[in-house]
Amino acid sequence: MKGVILALNPEARIVDITHEIAPQDVASAAFTLLAVYKSFPSRTIHVAVVDPGVGSARRPIVISASEQLFVGPDNGIFSYIIDREPGARAFHITNEEYFRKPMSATFHGRDVFAPVAAALSNDVEPRRLGSEIGDCVRLPPLSPAKAKDGKLHGRIIHIDRFGNCVTNITEQELTPEMIEKGAQLIVSGRVINTFRRFFSEQSASRAKLFAIWGSAGFLEIASTNQSAAKILKAQRGQEVIVNVR
Amino acid sequence: MKGVILALNPEARIVDITHEIAPQDVASAAFTLLAVYKSFPSRTIHVAVVDPGVGSARRPIVISASEQLFVGPDNGIFSYIIDREPGARAFHITNEEYFRKPMSATFHGRDVFAPVAAALSNDVEPRRLGSEIGDCVRLPPLSPAKAKDGKLHGRIIHIDRFGNCVTNITEQELTPEMIEKGAQLIVSGRVINTFRRFFSEQSASRAKLFAIWGSAGFLEIASTNQSAAKILKAQRGQEVIVNVR
Amino acid sequence: MKGVILALNPEARIVDITHEIAPQDVASAAFTLLAVYKSFPSRTIHVAVVDPGVGSARRPIVISASEQLFVGPDNGIFSYIIDREPGARAFHITNEEYFRKPMSATFHGRDVFAPVAAALSNDVEPRRLGSEIGDCVRLPPLSPAKAKDGKLHGRIIHIDRFGNCVTNITEQELTPEMIEKGAQLIVSGRVINTFRRFFSEQSASRAKLFAIWGSAGFLEIASTNQSAAKILKAQRGQEVIVNVR
Repeated sequence: MKGVILALNPEARIVDITHEIAPQDVASAAFTLLAVYKSFPSRTIHVAVVDPGVGSARRPIVISASEQLFVGPDNGIFSYIIDREPGARAFHITNEEYFRKPMSATFHGRDVFAPVAAALSNDVEPRRLGSEIGDCVRLPPLSPAKAKDGKLHGRIIHIDRFGNCVTNITEQELTPEMIEKGAQLIVSGRVINTFRRFFSEQSASRAKLFAIWGSAGFLEIASTNQSAAKILKAQRGQEVIVNVR
Repeated sequence: MKGVILALNPEARIVDITHEIAPQDVASAAFTLLAVYKSFPSRTIHVAVVDPGVGSARRPIVISASEQLFVGPDNGIFSYIIDREPGARAFHITNEEYFRKPMSATFHGRDVFAPVAAALSNDVEPRRLGSEIGDCVRLPPLSPAKAKDGKLHGRIIHIDRFGNCVTNITEQELTPEMIEKGAQLIVSGRVINTFRRFFSEQSASRAKLFAIWGSAGFLEIASTNQSAAKILKAQRGQEVIVNVR
Repeated sequence: MKGVILALNPEARIVDITHEIAPQDVASAAFTLLAVYKSFPSRTIHVAVVDPGVGSARRPIVISASEQLFVGPDNGIFSYIIDREPGARAFHITNEEYFRKPMSATFHGRDVFAPVAAALSNDVEPRRLGSEIGDCVRLPPLSPAKAKDGKLHGRIIHIDRFGNCVTNITEQELTPEMIEKGAQLIVSGRVINTFRRFFSEQSASRAKLFAIWGSAGFLEIASTNQSAAKILKAQRGQEVIVNVR
């Protein structure tokens, strides 16, 4: 993919964000994009290829949002960007003029997304690539649901390389007042009631596990210099219940 | 290596292809180069260092082929490029003027290949580096042999991170007509007779394993959203027999 | 971090050295920096973030040494650079003008070190960032101690991806004359008395394990095409005793 881009735009600046999303894990890729896109400059072109449906009828798309562009498969990978950016516009890539030929059925990263990204970097307008569409595939919304029992039902949406468990809970759902009043998290049957401001904070509590606001604005469950995921035997998708007093 | 290159040519554009070739696995590196080089623009300089013989008498070489240059050890790593490019020319790097000093006996990537690649990017001609040679070390040819029993005897040449098993079989050996007539693959004692066009193709067959043409033109054995290598307990080098009716 | 840097300096050239330092392993990061910095050109800005104390009172610092700059936490990560460079100067980063806002308590890589590195690449002087300091956190010195028994007591400071065990012993402590006279290493209860010049050297000795001078000037314990670390069940920090005759 880097070769294809550089062949079409020798001035392109390519940086790797990650090559460590697990195979087929569209939701992890969607979260990673959400966590990083705001740190990139306007006119950045993000190419994201976690693409179990490659070769099938799933559409290749370009999203224009927040003065950036996003290129990849229409499988939900850009859902959270669209959720967060009301002005987002989506285009179905159909103009084969910009594809690599011959096009394989198994590697659209190289044959569709990379050459289209290069074209965009060469100032081709998204609408030149295909029609605007309004029905992109969407993942279930990130925000946690409030159940009938009055408890907040969140979930683990990402486990980072340190073993920190990132949840889908933000300060919108769990306010400083609620934490002040003694909110508790329940994960894997364990109660977590220590909230820290930073990882190595000295705390009166000797709790092994604590909650902390992560750098993307989501509540994380962590453990000092240990993997919280291992301690909890946690998996992505697992439920995190919040008891608010 | 990146530091050495940038010190000699601050304008060099360096991209990483992979740092995940297993230690000493020259054949995997050779396959990876074969799979990617055609996607890079002319005048690309590929630096490839899988180099178990570093420090010994094995020669450092430059290959000029397909309007690109390849720098690395003479241990077969560029074999498949030479096989595919009849016009390839090889040069034995002996001109120490371009080496980093002092030169270590254990890290020619930093001390020979990186500074030589930087020199090439600064328009030094390959023949300035040393004499042309015609006897590069070659790996056994990639193409499968046809045995006396009339069957095609191929092998697994690469297992990717999804667990897809890439074989050395191309459409030259296994034509669409043969597949049409019911060709079968036998791997690890299992018969594979489903051929798909893309990974998520809906198929009448409910076979767990299927064959598919990969993006580099080689037949792969795959499984939908699973690792075919795990299912088959497959290893690189393992035999793949093709029964043609 | 790459996005933050490119937003502030679109001309920055960013290269990855490694993302494979184990979580919290400051000493491995310090060794890696020591091994690579001399290969980078003057005016390189190294950003190093292994930062278990993020958010706490540990200081963010810039080191100016060897015509390069180093940005990261004051936790010892730049110790070996300071040990090796008598002219090194350190600055405590306090000028929040250069920080990303709002600043998180958990990701100073993105919010402090990346924007400060970008500012330095835009020719902001280190002293603009904060006061010069003389009391940086230091790791125990790399050099091995000479015990009362007259033996040199070294240790394993890094295990590379090939399983080579890098020790803290240099030619200053173990001279060619000592090796000539029959110096021996003792690791994990095994005696190593074969010294090689390069990995694949043909040797009269059929010893499985041998010692070799690595590319950063430190003695390594290695095994041909095998992991010495596995054979020795070695761990970083483990003792390596040198018997000199």
